[in-house]
Amino acid sequence: MSAPRSRLRNVLGHLLPQPPSLPTPNDPPSPSPSQDNTATTAPPPYHLAHLSPTFFLERAASIEPDADAVYHMTAAGHPLVRSYRQVADRARGLAYYLRSRGYRRVGVLMPNTPAFLESIYGIVAAGGVVVPVNYRLKEEDVRYILEFAEVQCVFVDREFEGLLGRFRKGKGGKGVEVIVDLDTGATEGEMCGPFDEAVLEGLRIDQETGDKGWSDLVSRTVTNEDDTIAIPFTSGTTSRPKGVVYTHRGAYLAALANVVESGLNLPEGRCKYLWTLPMFHAVGWTFPWSVCAVRGTHVCLRKIDYALIWKLLKEQGITHFNAAPTVNTLLCAHKDAEVLPRPVRVTVAASPPTAHLFEQMTSLNLIPVHVYGLTETYGPITRGYMLPAWDVLPKHKKYANMARQGHGFLTSLPVRVIKQDQPEGVLVDVARDGKEMGEIVFEGNICCKGYYKDPEATRKLFAGGVLHSGDLAVWHPDGSIQIQDRAKDIIISGGENISSVALESMLVEHPDILEAGVVAVPDAHWGERPKAYLTVKEGGEGRIRGADVIEWAKHQSAISRYMVPREVEIVRELPKTSTGKIKKNVLREWAKKGTPREVLIGV
Amino acid sequence: MSAPRSRLRNVLGHLLPQPPSLPTPNDPPSPSPSQDNTATTAPPPYHLAHLSPTFFLERAASIEPDADAVYHMTAAGHPLVRSYRQVADRARGLAYYLRSRGYRRVGVLMPNTPAFLESIYGIVAAGGVVVPVNYRLKEEDVRYILEFAEVQCVFVDREFEGLLGRFRKGKGGKGVEVIVDLDTGATEGEMCGPFDEAVLEGLRIDQETGDKGWSDLVSRTVTNEDDTIAIPFTSGTTSRPKGVVYTHRGAYLAALANVVESGLNLPEGRCKYLWTLPMFHAVGWTFPWSVCAVRGTHVCLRKIDYALIWKLLKEQGITHFNAAPTVNTLLCAHKDAEVLPRPVRVTVAASPPTAHLFEQMTSLNLIPVHVYGLTETYGPITRGYMLPAWDVLPKHKKYANMARQGHGFLTSLPVRVIKQDQPEGVLVDVARDGKEMGEIVFEGNICCKGYYKDPEATRKLFAGGVLHSGDLAVWHPDGSIQIQDRAKDIIISGGENISSVALESMLVEHPDILEAGVVAVPDAHWGERPKAYLTVKEGGEGRIRGADVIEWAKHQSAISRYMVPREVEIVRELPKTSTGKIKKNVLREWAKKGTPREVLIGV
Repeated sequence: MSAPRSRLRNVLGHLLPQPPSLPTPNDPPSPSPSQDNTATTAPPPYHLAHLSPTFFLERAASIEPDADAVYHMTAAGHPLVRSYRQVADRARGLAYYLRSRGYRRVGVLMPNTPAFLESIYGIVAAGGVVVPVNYRLKEEDVRYILEFAEVQCVFVDREFEGLLGRFRKGKGGKGVEVIVDLDTGATEGEMCGPFDEAVLEGLRIDQETGDKGWSDLVSRTVTNEDDTIAIPFTSGTTSRPKGVVYTHRGAYLAALANVVESGLNLPEGRCKYLWTLPMFHAVGWTFPWSVCAVRGTHVCLRKIDYALIWKLLKEQGITHFNAAPTVNTLLCAHKDAEVLPRPVRVTVAASPPTAHLFEQMTSLNLIPVHVYGLTETYGPITRGYMLPAWDVLPKHKKYANMARQGHGFLTSLPVRVIKQDQPEGVLVDVARDGKEMGEIVFEGNICCKGYYKDPEATRKLFAGGVLHSGDLAVWHPDGSIQIQDRAKDIIISGGENISSVALESMLVEHPDILEAGVVAVPDAHWGERPKAYLTVKEGGEGRIRGADVIEWAKHQSAISRYMVPREVEIVRELPKTSTGKIKKNVLREWAKKGTPREVLIGV
Repeated sequence: MSAPRSRLRNVLGHLLPQPPSLPTPNDPPSPSPSQDNTATTAPPPYHLAHLSPTFFLERAASIEPDADAVYHMTAAGHPLVRSYRQVADRARGLAYYLRSRGYRRVGVLMPNTPAFLESIYGIVAAGGVVVPVNYRLKEEDVRYILEFAEVQCVFVDREFEGLLGRFRKGKGGKGVEVIVDLDTGATEGEMCGPFDEAVLEGLRIDQETGDKGWSDLVSRTVTNEDDTIAIPFTSGTTSRPKGVVYTHRGAYLAALANVVESGLNLPEGRCKYLWTLPMFHAVGWTFPWSVCAVRGTHVCLRKIDYALIWKLLKEQGITHFNAAPTVNTLLCAHKDAEVLPRPVRVTVAASPPTAHLFEQMTSLNLIPVHVYGLTETYGPITRGYMLPAWDVLPKHKKYANMARQGHGFLTSLPVRVIKQDQPEGVLVDVARDGKEMGEIVFEGNICCKGYYKDPEATRKLFAGGVLHSGDLAVWHPDGSIQIQDRAKDIIISGGENISSVALESMLVEHPDILEAGVVAVPDAHWGERPKAYLTVKEGGEGRIRGADVIEWAKHQSAISRYMVPREVEIVRELPKTSTGKIKKNVLREWAKKGTPREVLIGV
């Protein structure tokens, strides 16, 4: 068997577009240290191959075909194990199927199943683009995304087929093939669904057209590493979801960084990664690629079920998972929580975690790897590095340091915090004093390429040439950043900024409080003041009232007097996004119109 | 402080040269699955930054300035510790010094000292190219390399200043500044040498010209990631040393792969990397960058001293080192050898190791990471992955599997073995049967750019569009490769190929034999037959004679009868290159002219 020479030849095109010559306000004259370029004159650049993380699956299957690629409890409740050979074969089958139909833009509306994972590889191997869709969205939003992304085909899990109703009826759904996965675990016979049949048809096509396998697919390299690999969408809490353009190069470098930062390459044995984080969210923070890069096992999970997660943690030797602070909070509070015999690395992001949570997690041998990022940065792009020097600090200080968002990732450029009072596109760093608040901005290869079909939003996102997070932070003297709030969540009271994040962190220190969400309410005298929504720990319902919390807060040294909430309501549960962020817009709605009776427990 | 906008703007040039349109014999028509490119039309590509590993030092110093970057026993015998802040400051000083002088091509003739490490970063930060020179070369070769590479400045350790004699007297040495490092560990005062003074002058220059620090140097990005970062030279056992062109992108991707493959990112704490491998060799296999990427400690070492290495292993908590099989053989045989309390990962390459060695190492808690590569591939480019499935195999089989060279690295493309009987540039894979022998060839981003100022050698290196190793291997059914020999070392006896590597592996299984080197000798009947040169273990000198070994070899099942050496000589030591490879050309010389009396012990 000879490897595909043609592809290697094709990859040597222009990698990057022409340099822009747009002047920007704060662009000083270029010092441009001229580079001593000793290029040999002779041969074409055989040393360059365009980066693509899709190769990691083919590679894993060729090194260790019998290693477990997938462990999964199917929709039917049966355990399913697939080897790397099997998963790679199935992805390959999908790719040949898609290519035979000419589908190059494919929507995926699935929970964290093996079929989702196979789709991510199969679609890209066919030269296509993955469009993952959040299955917690309304029918209308699902339709909007699939139409806007101009998908030619949709892979859907049977459970969510109903969500396609409006899309199928709409104009954009005409002629789009919908392929249902039953998640039975079957690969042949009666239990197979249309998804499995597509796989089998693709494998037949490959067999009948020369049995070229991976060598005829997009895997080892791509035409141009700056081409699109996926378009995940933002959650769009306040506006239409936006499509975020991911490239092969960006996904590759982000996936490699995640291997190193989360330590997926264990010194002994393979990682077993539990899929608590939705794969649709920022393509699972690139972990579908990272885990295959080290031939780890993907332990799939159809939904967050804390009892099942504890069972898997205890019985399946899970080594890693990723989850938002809210998921970790509820996991730690679950009745099955137990100190694990071996450390499990938990990569935590999505909203700022509290020092309190990190202390709790650590006590259960859930070792936090604290990262921060956006859909626009392939998920994680900063990490709160645990420094050995902190080991001598008082416990509270140590966990407070861990809760900082930290420094730029290994394959990113440094993160910065810039002043907000400047004209758009003017970048002036705030003081590194841990006090001055500004906006977090990013630079480098793990920034997305832009918003799909939205040049105006893209221009704003990159105003001044950096990626704007919309998150407010302080910059500490040690160079680490710490989020204070989303720009729109900050509370301005008597001219002072109150960080809702800091206030929430303080509130969960109360022994009866489980979670806290703080928003601004109008105040005749101060302009705005904070209002807190709280959930309480099991058995705590009767024990505390809002007034008690306000009284308690007045005596906490972590906050100043003006930060004490004006109002506190205790509720059954907090409204959250699919990724576990508290929906502040809903809380603001409650504050304005009154909290719905069914969630309110007391004030 | 505002980060340097200008540099980020400068990086957006062409990354890759124009595609070549050279036809090659086996290039089928391109299937070219057209990529669905969904590029947003709006902004310039702010999401792209040119890769350079030099940033890893600046980054480490900004995250953890007080972490130990260097531990070293100076030439004067004093222990020296430098923090990341200090090493980064010194590299920065060097960079400003070099830039003020206009030096962009700098030779480095040093043992593994902190100054070497600082030079690698300082030279590149100044926009220059590192030319490391092997200090075990003859004066004439040192002169050749420095002249050929057109260096404008040389950093030299005092111990090796004498080696510059011919260079200084020659034409190419005129006007070249030679800066001596005394390796005293001093940073100011009388003990400082010229190298330290250059550092101080550079720091003054930075201070006097606006205190721009790293922001004005080449660190976060470069003008073009395909530009040259270093030109290490091949050892040139048979011909003139060749300059191998390394790029920023190649070094970056190789360094990241080494982090993952050698597991430098420990789950807990920082790695402590012991510099047994010469830094001049393939720029230390990119480990000067890999170790800084994870903020590890470089434990420097002026020379291989087995007693000192054991002392450091036992007392300094070394977690990783790299060394050739010969170094590991002598290390395991040393009188201070002891089972280490915690596993130390030893990345082994340079020449094919034996199963026997891996078994020995493992018993001492020196856990082998078996890699293979060339100076032309930035050092390691394949790894013999340890598969959990091997745990059930008989011990001997397991270690034999470990001794295979394995599969392509994470950031490489797959390695191949091609038939030798084809016209130049025609690539036909051998059968994956573990039997057919062919040449190992490489593809992808961790192949060098070519040979410096040698288009003809570069053309040959990349004949057919792949990098030719010159090493012969078989390809196993599981996709792993196993080296049989250098093309020129294979012994052809009665039409059969005899692998000198396989024969050496068999010979060291003998309880009294320490090392073995096998070469071909002319044979009237068979054409060629093997001759073995052996060293024996301590105390074994009197115990065996060559004739005994031949008799013993006849009864070993691992080899066929025709492979039994015709002659065996026992010698005091084997001739080796600076990287620990046995010099087969010297053994062939001995076989022809007679073994020198001073090394011969018996036959």
